[in-house]
Amino acid sequence: MAGTVDRPAVRRPGGRTARVRAQILAATAELVARDGIAGFRYEEVAKLAGVHKTSVYRNWPEREELVVEALLRYADDLGSVGDTGELRRDLVDFLMVIAESLGRPTARALALATQAAHESPAVHRVATRILEERTAGTRRRVEMAIDRGELPPVDCSLLGEMIAGPVHLIVNRGIRAFTRADAERIVDVVLTGIRATAPHT
Amino acid sequence: MAGTVDRPAVRRPGGRTARVRAQILAATAELVARDGIAGFRYEEVAKLAGVHKTSVYRNWPEREELVVEALLRYADDLGSVGDTGELRRDLVDFLMVIAESLGRPTARALALATQAAHESPAVHRVATRILEERTAGTRRRVEMAIDRGELPPVDCSLLGEMIAGPVHLIVNRGIRAFTRADAERIVDVVLTGIRATAPHT
Repeated sequence: MAGTVDRPAVRRPGGRTARVRAQILAATAELVARDGIAGFRYEEVAKLAGVHKTSVYRNWPEREELVVEALLRYADDLGSVGDTGELRRDLVDFLMVIAESLGRPTARALALATQAAHESPAVHRVATRILEERTAGTRRRVEMAIDRGELPPVDCSLLGEMIAGPVHLIVNRGIRAFTRADAERIVDVVLTGIRATAPHT
Repeated sequence: MAGTVDRPAVRRPGGRTARVRAQILAATAELVARDGIAGFRYEEVAKLAGVHKTSVYRNWPEREELVVEALLRYADDLGSVGDTGELRRDLVDFLMVIAESLGRPTARALALATQAAHESPAVHRVATRILEERTAGTRRRVEMAIDRGELPPVDCSLLGEMIAGPVHLIVNRGIRAFTRADAERIVDVVLTGIRATAPHT
């Protein structure tokens, strides 16, 4: 899913090194979520990851690179929209994945990054690409449904925004839990509304 | 609209004092948006507002009170949902008001405040109430439409989230502009979908 996102030129070794890297990136996401892109500190990343500070500095001398990699790892975790052949079920499952992922600190780091256009252009660029990739995943799945005649031709981006927007709003507000019943209702209303308002051909 | 939100016990005098207070609160919102609830500085608020630092300290010795008032003023600016008798038009107008308000720094301050449950419980409480008030505005308008037979009985909160969620997502991502055509399409799809999926009685 994140295959077309530019990556910094780093090796992805396995074993202990890979675990240490994963711990550092998870800690980075958590601290960016708490303190902001400009505010988080390498020392605290090292402490939270349980490694020596030099491990962080050696691998990521530039803080922007560290933030970018932490965000990209989050993008990897987000599965693309599945294809069971049943559009409704695939979209409901996708909304549940979004809801779960929004509860993680990396989601907040990503939200901060999308607003960091002036503060940190490189980080902002990557955040925007991650969001575009995710949008593209929904779009591809909806286009398949149109090809198969399950849906009339629609603006796939707006459809994606119409089903994902309410999930973001409900989870970010945190006033109530987001349930599978919510996901089903949202997908049903939007798909039914789109079919009913499509121009007859 | 914010009439039922608890307010700190302060006078709201007119004239020059009122202007100074408004400038301080606007500056606070802008700096909270930039530096966070715990990060913004009184000195910078005073500088941005063009007043002496003691004017800020004297009126708001507690920083939480200052943030709370800045947020409440934002809530006052947000008009409630109008009632022209035509539900579709009123909801489209409401989405345009939301889109415009989300572009202001105070919206970002409010978003930060809703996530500050641990950092600052008092601020978080007020942010949550402001959001609830706004939701209540939509709910009242939708309930009127149900009473008049324009809509079948529906979950008014979810309807509000379904129309407002996409606006938040599109504006916050900042990848494209939110247009009146978007607002119309969203309201049409949701209202049509809700009518078509209502149980027949």
